[in-house]
Amino acid sequence: MNNAPIGVFDSGVGGLTVAREIMRQIPNERIVYFGDTARVPYGSKSKDIIIKYSRQIIRFLLTENVKAIVIACNTASAFAIETMQQEFDIPIVGVVKPGAKVAAETTKNGRIGLIGTEGTIRSGVYADYIKSFRENTEVIGKACPLFVPLVEEGMLHDEVTDIVANRYLSELKNKDIDTLIMGCTHYPLLRSTVAKIMGEGVNLVNPAYETAIELKNVLTRENIANVCEVDSPSSMYRFYVSDDEDKFKTFANSILPFDITMTQQINIEEY
Amino acid sequence: MNNAPIGVFDSGVGGLTVAREIMRQIPNERIVYFGDTARVPYGSKSKDIIIKYSRQIIRFLLTENVKAIVIACNTASAFAIETMQQEFDIPIVGVVKPGAKVAAETTKNGRIGLIGTEGTIRSGVYADYIKSFRENTEVIGKACPLFVPLVEEGMLHDEVTDIVANRYLSELKNKDIDTLIMGCTHYPLLRSTVAKIMGEGVNLVNPAYETAIELKNVLTRENIANVCEVDSPSSMYRFYVSDDEDKFKTFANSILPFDITMTQQINIEEY
Repeated sequence: MNNAPIGVFDSGVGGLTVAREIMRQIPNERIVYFGDTARVPYGSKSKDIIIKYSRQIIRFLLTENVKAIVIACNTASAFAIETMQQEFDIPIVGVVKPGAKVAAETTKNGRIGLIGTEGTIRSGVYADYIKSFRENTEVIGKACPLFVPLVEEGMLHDEVTDIVANRYLSELKNKDIDTLIMGCTHYPLLRSTVAKIMGEGVNLVNPAYETAIELKNVLTRENIANVCEVDSPSSMYRFYVSDDEDKFKTFANSILPFDITMTQQINIEEY
Repeated sequence: MNNAPIGVFDSGVGGLTVAREIMRQIPNERIVYFGDTARVPYGSKSKDIIIKYSRQIIRFLLTENVKAIVIACNTASAFAIETMQQEFDIPIVGVVKPGAKVAAETTKNGRIGLIGTEGTIRSGVYADYIKSFRENTEVIGKACPLFVPLVEEGMLHDEVTDIVANRYLSELKNKDIDTLIMGCTHYPLLRSTVAKIMGEGVNLVNPAYETAIELKNVLTRENIANVCEVDSPSSMYRFYVSDDEDKFKTFANSILPFDITMTQQINIEEY
């Protein structure tokens, strides 16, 4: 059991920023990653559909004999984690709770900004968790629907992205926040743009880092941490997608510190 | 049979611009519209996935006893229409061939620009059809991946959209084209922006108009045109989606000349 892999999933490539953080912090754990590239994006879709997609993906990951699941997508974590934890008898870690925890610990004035997809903001789940960790906080959410397409177009440093970011963040700038959660896995790739606009007085929280720590704690608590040697990436990490592999590989190889060799397309609707 | 509806489908709401054109030109035909809002967008996905999705949707539309199908999505028309015409014994009309035909008839200098999704441009299908209608043409394609999210955000008249449009279209401006195909159902909503940038010497082609004419011809040729009276929209038109109905209704009511009453969510993966 301890040698079994961790199942990590996302709507597409964004969750690779979370997988990368797990690889850094727990290098002796195997990973099976699934990117739902045939149905991406999740951010504008309904709670019911995201729950359905998450259920199918977890069923698939269980066929790969995973010992724990990481929902490396903010929208899926916000909408689906509670239902999934009820339905499946396996530890499931999302990115929202760890992100909320570190934000609650970071803020001094109790005023926290949150940027994310339409679904993540609408769910209100970040605010619920933050208030459970620290009372008397105010969470100011702002959906940034164009950030994902801009990142996917590679426009990380671009006049258009600057204008769009200034517009989204201007609402938050007047709210006296001292902490800002980057509540979508794509957003850390826009970190420098967001940091410049928000200024030095605002701490940026990337839930990926804290999620890897939470996963490590869960593995230890459940006594299922891997005790074996670290092997080569090709034997430690497997990648599955629901659409064409090649496009995924190109993006993955630009994010991960090694080149992916094995990627396989599966029919996720069958699960 | 003549009273049976036309099945019209799209990846989401964009195809409503085609449905609207059919309603205008053939007001006595019933329509069953399906928008694949749970899996939108199609423009960045692979040919195999688009064929699979199109097959599921046509199977669903056949359960509604449609007498003909309109693929009101450029990407699905480009990738899937030939396979669908082979697999199903029912008249199927796409938007690409009618759009290509009118472009071939419109151009004087034989130089035609094409804007569309990554998939539509990559497929090369527009160029194939154009050359079948008129030899000695050159088709210059340009994918505009940010146009769909900008339209969906309602940024039809916006500084950001102007900058993005100028950037995409600048490549086409130096190519001496006299005709430009708006090869994605969302793009006619950006018509004024595109027209201003391209200038008066370039004719803009909207395949939706020509698709409705082609459908009318097919219905007449196959002797399946409706001969009955026009009734109220609520009895003439039915709408189905694969995700939540409410968001679709809001967009649809902003595009169509009447308010949608009946919209139903179905599980498209079952077909």
